[in-house]
Amino acid sequence: MSGLIGLDWGTSSLRAYWLDEAGEIRETRARPWGIRHLPDGGFDAALTDITADWPRLPRLACGMVGSHQGWLEVPYMDLPADTAQLGSAVRSLRAKDGLDVHIVPGLRNPQGPDVMRGEETQLLGALTLHPVLISDSTWILPGTHSKWARVCDGAVADFRTLMTGELFALLRQHSILCTGSGDATADTDAFARGVIAARDSGTAGAFSLLFSARALMLDGALAPDAVPEYLSGLLIGEELRSSLATNRFRHDAPLQLIGDAALCARYRLAASHFNLDLADSLLDAAAHGLWQIACDIGLVSTDSSAAPKETSSC
Amino acid sequence: MSGLIGLDWGTSSLRAYWLDEAGEIRETRARPWGIRHLPDGGFDAALTDITADWPRLPRLACGMVGSHQGWLEVPYMDLPADTAQLGSAVRSLRAKDGLDVHIVPGLRNPQGPDVMRGEETQLLGALTLHPVLISDSTWILPGTHSKWARVCDGAVADFRTLMTGELFALLRQHSILCTGSGDATADTDAFARGVIAARDSGTAGAFSLLFSARALMLDGALAPDAVPEYLSGLLIGEELRSSLATNRFRHDAPLQLIGDAALCARYRLAASHFNLDLADSLLDAAAHGLWQIACDIGLVSTDSSAAPKETSSC
Repeated sequence: MSGLIGLDWGTSSLRAYWLDEAGEIRETRARPWGIRHLPDGGFDAALTDITADWPRLPRLACGMVGSHQGWLEVPYMDLPADTAQLGSAVRSLRAKDGLDVHIVPGLRNPQGPDVMRGEETQLLGALTLHPVLISDSTWILPGTHSKWARVCDGAVADFRTLMTGELFALLRQHSILCTGSGDATADTDAFARGVIAARDSGTAGAFSLLFSARALMLDGALAPDAVPEYLSGLLIGEELRSSLATNRFRHDAPLQLIGDAALCARYRLAASHFNLDLADSLLDAAAHGLWQIACDIGLVSTDSSAAPKETSSC
Repeated sequence: MSGLIGLDWGTSSLRAYWLDEAGEIRETRARPWGIRHLPDGGFDAALTDITADWPRLPRLACGMVGSHQGWLEVPYMDLPADTAQLGSAVRSLRAKDGLDVHIVPGLRNPQGPDVMRGEETQLLGALTLHPVLISDSTWILPGTHSKWARVCDGAVADFRTLMTGELFALLRQHSILCTGSGDATADTDAFARGVIAARDSGTAGAFSLLFSARALMLDGALAPDAVPEYLSGLLIGEELRSSLATNRFRHDAPLQLIGDAALCARYRLAASHFNLDLADSLLDAAAHGLWQIACDIGLVSTDSSAAPKETSSC
């Protein structure tokens, strides 16, 4: 039997894909076993458990599993990088079950500097699903550390990281802005109010508006239970305002979203206040990226590995 | 015996001043008994302890002690407000020792909205020490929630709040930017690097640069122990950049600092990268403000209550 086991192994979670000989996903499993939350037995035990009853297939992983705190450190590769270049820098280790685990490198943007691990594989996987976007496209990967990225000629050409998700969690859990019952009740009006405040913050930026979440509440203009939604809008709105202000990301075509559906829905709603059109979010992009890299480096043999490519002058 | 006991009673600390009949500070005492960290026995016990052995004098307090979570809620007063107007809105309660405690209101800025409690008294106290600044001046009160304020004709005319100090603490204690040994070693180069990164962040703002603290460290360009200093520079630099970008605060004359000497020294250093001149910080401004308000409302009788005033058209 041929095929691939793909591992998207991040800081807080592990997702495993069993891909068949055509690169189609046969089964997906998820565990809360990020590299900082491993079960007893560490990486080997986590891998054995999450692939139990699956065939012994080549294994390719991406994400923080390749970081200094991971299973095997795989150095960052500088931009620009496409799947072939990523593949050329894959490193391997022998697991206790006697089979290898291959790990994709992360990317480094010398401008900044900035780094990513895992998102590069998601991005390049998404391109295999939408080859029309290979020549020139802009991508948003919302999350704890949101990434904005630009793809040119099939390679990741630029990206930046914003700590939007982590800041939201910190402010909600530990700051003076901890208010309300803690229930995540949707409040579209409060969310929109935050987005618009950030959008209209001009050159001063919304960083200076964080305290407004408290002042509006004290003023009776924002219910305590609505503060989280306002804050979410403020932070996502600032991510959009700030990223667009850099002029590093084209937005004259739909921006592509990759990630959790509920979070991506927030970004789509926020973007509507910037007159921006965000495409529907893509799921399981990492699996497709891992498959593509596995094909490039001959880890799997298939005739479907060559995605059509277009070129441009971006 | 005449005189005043002044209380600067905030969220995390309590400071008591014994002022003599001329408004001079005879003794100062501090306790970690902010309104959220009261000793057994609450407000009464804290007051009794911190004023032990002092004469029974009129008592005037400012700060979060007048908030909804305080001893007695004193509603915010809208801008603009001078000491006489603040005095007219003082409210009083009878403590268990049989004497009253009078509490100064906080200020509300309808533009924003925004609020302060305690800083208004420090500001107006500082003016009594520097009457030349009464007509038109800009003030920075660094802290957990930094305030930038403009004074016109002896009244607080505008202000804004930035959560600089709280954000620094959150990011240091709970985020992925927790690095290093935790020792607060001075690193002027790393601090300056953060300030300059924020200053040069342009319209995108430094909010989007937070992750650079990690990326620079992974890149080997910033030692783990230097991350806190870089982050401090980034946040204070962003406070300066953002506040100046609003054009609400004049900086063609020295900006006035009120607050902790070590923290104010950081602000002075950061401001030098903006070609800004910050005056030496003022201490015990709250005591002077409480004295002035006490004079205005007849809580103490003195001939020294009338500070010289200048007028302008700001």
